[in-house]
Amino acid sequence: MEFSSKLLENAVNEVSMLPGIGKRTALRLVLHLLRQPDTQTEQLAEALMKFRNEIKLCQSCHNISDVALCEICANTNRDGTIICVVEDVRDVMAIESTAQFRGLYHVLGGKISPMDGIGPHDLTIESLVRKVKEGEVKELIFALSSTIEGDTTNFYIYKQLEGTDVKTSTIARGIAVGDELEYADEVTLGRSIINRVPFENSLKTS
Amino acid sequence: MEFSSKLLENAVNEVSMLPGIGKRTALRLVLHLLRQPDTQTEQLAEALMKFRNEIKLCQSCHNISDVALCEICANTNRDGTIICVVEDVRDVMAIESTAQFRGLYHVLGGKISPMDGIGPHDLTIESLVRKVKEGEVKELIFALSSTIEGDTTNFYIYKQLEGTDVKTSTIARGIAVGDELEYADEVTLGRSIINRVPFENSLKTS
Repeated sequence: MEFSSKLLENAVNEVSMLPGIGKRTALRLVLHLLRQPDTQTEQLAEALMKFRNEIKLCQSCHNISDVALCEICANTNRDGTIICVVEDVRDVMAIESTAQFRGLYHVLGGKISPMDGIGPHDLTIESLVRKVKEGEVKELIFALSSTIEGDTTNFYIYKQLEGTDVKTSTIARGIAVGDELEYADEVTLGRSIINRVPFENSLKTS
Repeated sequence: MEFSSKLLENAVNEVSMLPGIGKRTALRLVLHLLRQPDTQTEQLAEALMKFRNEIKLCQSCHNISDVALCEICANTNRDGTIICVVEDVRDVMAIESTAQFRGLYHVLGGKISPMDGIGPHDLTIESLVRKVKEGEVKELIFALSSTIEGDTTNFYIYKQLEGTDVKTSTIARGIAVGDELEYADEVTLGRSIINRVPFENSLKTS
């Protein structure tokens, strides 16, 4: 790409460092800003800087938060005896949007993945185990994605908890609500039969 | 989307105001920045701000530029008697990357499009006509996209130039180099026959 302007080139280079954004898209975005009032660029730059510099990780669950203890952990109406273990912040948001879970979370920050050089000590597993050993927690729900890495991570945590009497469970895998059986993959369909639930349970909507 | 953090929500909202970027993509981009050194966010924010605040439009061709007269207009090796009329900055970059054009440009800033509320006075047509009437320019090459709006704009400029003896041309439309005839649309194929070129010309590569 031939740039007639260093300022433009710089802006395009920086934007194209974001994942999934190539040079052409970056150019389109940057030129779009030029057609908008300059306050928009200002607000964008400021929001990103403030976010990056002021955001905290909750000292208890490692969810991102504006304060030392996140909204969810600080909410005394939530049940601190049940903890849902997730990979990252987006999973917390996804589960929160269902309004079906009133316990707390623990954000691992990823999955154990030797291929990517991520070991147990790169995640927040130690603080989870410590929390369980302190005795308040009665149940852990593993809500990691069902990949080899996810299963490995679940199992690693499970082994670390030997000797405690915490209950562990994983979220149910099965046919998505509204999906046709014939299009489901065999593994999912198979699991949905093995893990069938009493019919009365399926009548509950909330 | 349920945000547990105002800082995150703000950043996501600002990023998702960019065209083609939804809330989910914005969230992914913003969380990516959190995993990078904070200098990356700083450089991104600074590059955008500097670009937006310091960028100029070339006083002659309206191309974006770091200085009052852009690199291309300031280059005395280029031929000021032939001007290529384009819609926007990206078209200048595309033509420059071919290294086939040694004249100057004129960036209109769009096309006449009553549907979008864009009239001739929203574009830089007046300054183009003035430039031509000053007498130095011998040829205008219209390189707008071949849509109704593009053709309208070409024709509007053409009428404004009545009485001057400037030559006008449009870039050639035809089958792209390397394309199969059978997949070409009829209009393009038809034009490529009407505007056929002497065989010897097709032997020139540059």
